[in-house]
Amino acid sequence: MVGGGQLARMTHEAGIPLGVRFRLLSDGPRDSAAQVVRDVVVGDYRDLDTLRSFARGCDVVTFDHEHVPTEHLRALEAEGVAVRPGPDALRYAQDKGAMRARLTELGVPCPRHRIVADPAEVTAFATVEEGASGFPVVLKTVRGGYDGKGVWLVRDEAEAAEPFRAGVPVLAEERVDFVRELAANVVRSPHGQAVAYPVVESVQVNGVCDTVIAPAPGLSEELSARAQALALGIARELGVVGHLAVELFETPDGRVLVNELAMRPHNSGHWTQDGAATSQFANHLRAVLDLPLGDPRPRARWTVMANVLGGDYPDMYGAYLHCMARDPGLKIHMYGKDVKPGRKVGHVTTYGDDLDQVRERAAHAAGYLRGTITE
Amino acid sequence: MVGGGQLARMTHEAGIPLGVRFRLLSDGPRDSAAQVVRDVVVGDYRDLDTLRSFARGCDVVTFDHEHVPTEHLRALEAEGVAVRPGPDALRYAQDKGAMRARLTELGVPCPRHRIVADPAEVTAFATVEEGASGFPVVLKTVRGGYDGKGVWLVRDEAEAAEPFRAGVPVLAEERVDFVRELAANVVRSPHGQAVAYPVVESVQVNGVCDTVIAPAPGLSEELSARAQALALGIARELGVVGHLAVELFETPDGRVLVNELAMRPHNSGHWTQDGAATSQFANHLRAVLDLPLGDPRPRARWTVMANVLGGDYPDMYGAYLHCMARDPGLKIHMYGKDVKPGRKVGHVTTYGDDLDQVRERAAHAAGYLRGTITE
Repeated sequence: MVGGGQLARMTHEAGIPLGVRFRLLSDGPRDSAAQVVRDVVVGDYRDLDTLRSFARGCDVVTFDHEHVPTEHLRALEAEGVAVRPGPDALRYAQDKGAMRARLTELGVPCPRHRIVADPAEVTAFATVEEGASGFPVVLKTVRGGYDGKGVWLVRDEAEAAEPFRAGVPVLAEERVDFVRELAANVVRSPHGQAVAYPVVESVQVNGVCDTVIAPAPGLSEELSARAQALALGIARELGVVGHLAVELFETPDGRVLVNELAMRPHNSGHWTQDGAATSQFANHLRAVLDLPLGDPRPRARWTVMANVLGGDYPDMYGAYLHCMARDPGLKIHMYGKDVKPGRKVGHVTTYGDDLDQVRERAAHAAGYLRGTITE
Repeated sequence: MVGGGQLARMTHEAGIPLGVRFRLLSDGPRDSAAQVVRDVVVGDYRDLDTLRSFARGCDVVTFDHEHVPTEHLRALEAEGVAVRPGPDALRYAQDKGAMRARLTELGVPCPRHRIVADPAEVTAFATVEEGASGFPVVLKTVRGGYDGKGVWLVRDEAEAAEPFRAGVPVLAEERVDFVRELAANVVRSPHGQAVAYPVVESVQVNGVCDTVIAPAPGLSEELSARAQALALGIARELGVVGHLAVELFETPDGRVLVNELAMRPHNSGHWTQDGAATSQFANHLRAVLDLPLGDPRPRARWTVMANVLGGDYPDMYGAYLHCMARDPGLKIHMYGKDVKPGRKVGHVTTYGDDLDQVRERAAHAAGYLRGTITE
C-alpha cells in the first residue's frame, strides 16, 4: 500500500487475519502505518523509480491516498504491475474536473459546475449562465484537496482570486441547498463482484467529517436503494477496484447529488470496523486481491463513528483512561499520531439499539479526548 | 510480548487500534507474529541478557507462551521491569505440580492427583491409594507440555515408563469421567478490576482443541455462574494479571473440576475476536497496561470457533477462495504459517442465531481448508 497514514494502518490491521503479507511505502519511518507494519519502505511516492522498486515482489499495489501521479501509475501498469484501483479509474478520484465531466456524461446527478479560468468566469458562472443562482459559489482546485483543504466558499469576485493562486485548474460548483450529507460506500473486485454497505449520514464540522451514523436515520428505503445503485453504477462504469466512497448531498426535494468520490477506505466507512460483518478495510483488501467479498451488513441496529481531533493538550492518556472506564463498550481506534490542534488522531465507535444513547456515547468520548468536554 | 506465535500476532492486531507500541521477542524473523510487527527483536527467551535488553524501553512485558524460565522473570522483576503476569502468578501456569498444590490449598475442585517418582508409584496411585479408581490414569510432565504434548493416558505400569524419560517431574491424575470440557475465561488488571467471558464448551480431538462453542450449549445459569466465580477467584488468589483461561471438566453429577490454567490469550477465547464486544487479545493488553477493561459480553446468540489444521496439501489458497465465496459471513484468521499436517495454521469463526447452522458453517470451513471435506 502506498501511503503511511491511518488508512494504511487500519488496512494492515484488517489484513493480519487474512494472512496478507503487507508492504508499505511511507514518507517516513514514524508515520501512522509505519509504526505497525513489518515491511516498510521509506520513500517518495512521487518518484517513479521508488514506486518501481517498491512494487517489485508485490502481487498488487493499492493506495492510502490519491496523490500518486497518474502517469506513474500508467507506467507501472505498462510494466505489468497490478495497480488497483487502476489509473483509468483512479484519475476520477484524483481530478475533480475529470470526475464531474465523466459523471455528467454517465447521467449521474451532480451540482451545476464548470472549470473556470479566472475570477471573472466565476462571476459569470455565479450570476449570468443558465441555472446561475448567485453567490456564494464553491471553488475547488481539481487536484490535491482533502478535509476542506483546496475548497473555498466565495461570496464575490474579489474572494474568488485566492483559489487561482496555486496555478491548478479550478472547478466552480453551485452551493447545493442540502438537507444533509450522505455517503454510499461500495466495494468492487476485478471480476465485477460488488457489495454495498448501508448508506450513512455524515456530519461535517468546518469541512471535516465529525460524525457518521449508520444507517442514515430516517432515510427511506427507496432513496437508500437509489443511492446504493448510484454508487454501484459509478464503480462499474469507472472500473473501480476496491472501496469506493460516494459522498452525496441529500436535497430538500428528495434527490441525491454526488459531492466527492474516494477510491480507497474512507472516513465515512470507519464505522464498519465495529458495526459491520466485514469492515471496509477487509473488503478493500479482498477486492484488490480478487478474493470473494465479505458480508457488508450491519451487526447492530445503530453504529456511530466520531472522529477524535487533537486539542490543546498533547497528552491524551488521562482522557483515554477516563473514556474506557466510563464506557466499557466504547471502541477506540488511535492512529499513533502526535496530537496537534484540529488534527485527526483517532476515532471512536459505539453501537446499540437506542440511537440517542449511541450518539451521546460517541460524542462524549470524542469530545472528552479532544478536551472540549471536561466531565 | 515474548514469543512470536499466533497469540502474539493477534495481540498486536488488537493493539493497533489501542495505539499500543508493540515490541516482539521472537525466535526467528519469519515467525507468525514477526511477519506483521514493526519492532521485532530476534533472540532466545531462555537467555536472561536477551530478555533484559528486550525489556529495556518497554512499559510492560507479557507473554505468548509459558516457557520463559521463572528465575529469569524474577530477575527482571527485581531489576524493576513490569512483568505481567508476574512470576508469582505465572509459575502456576508453568508448573502443573505447583498449580495442583496451590489450587487444592485454595479449595478449588481438581481431579485427584499427586507427583509420582516412578512407574511403581503410578501403580500405587492408580490402584492402592484412597480414591484410587484403577488404570488408566493420566500422566503429565509438570513443565513444557501443550496441545496434548507432555500428556499420556497410561493403561498399566509398563506404559508409565515413558513420561519419566524426560527427567522432568511427573504428575499423576485420575482420568475424569467428564460429560464435556468447558473453559471459563477471565481477565484481571493490576488494580484488581476483572471481567468474565461467557463460559464456553471446548471440543478436543486427539488432545488438540478442535471447536469452541460460545456460550456452552445447555449450561445452566447456576453452573455457568459457578464456573465464572471459580475462574475469577483463581485469578484473584493467584494474583493473575491479564487473560486467564481455566479449562474445566464438567462431570455427570454437575460439578466442574479444573483441568489446566493458561495465563495469556488462549485458544478457547479466539471466538471473542468476532463474537464478543471486546476480544480476549484487546482485554489482555488493557489488563497488562492497567487500562480499564472492555465489555466481555457476546455480540451474537451463538459464536463457534473451529481450528484450521494443516492437511496433506500445502497450498490452501484455492480452499481459501472457496470458503470465502461459499460463506461471506465467515471470519478467517490465518497465522501466516507454513502448512504441515496437523499444525494449527489458523481458525475460523461463525456467528448467528441457529446453533446447528453456525456449527455446520465453521466445521465446513475448517474441514475444507484442511482438506478433509472436499465439497
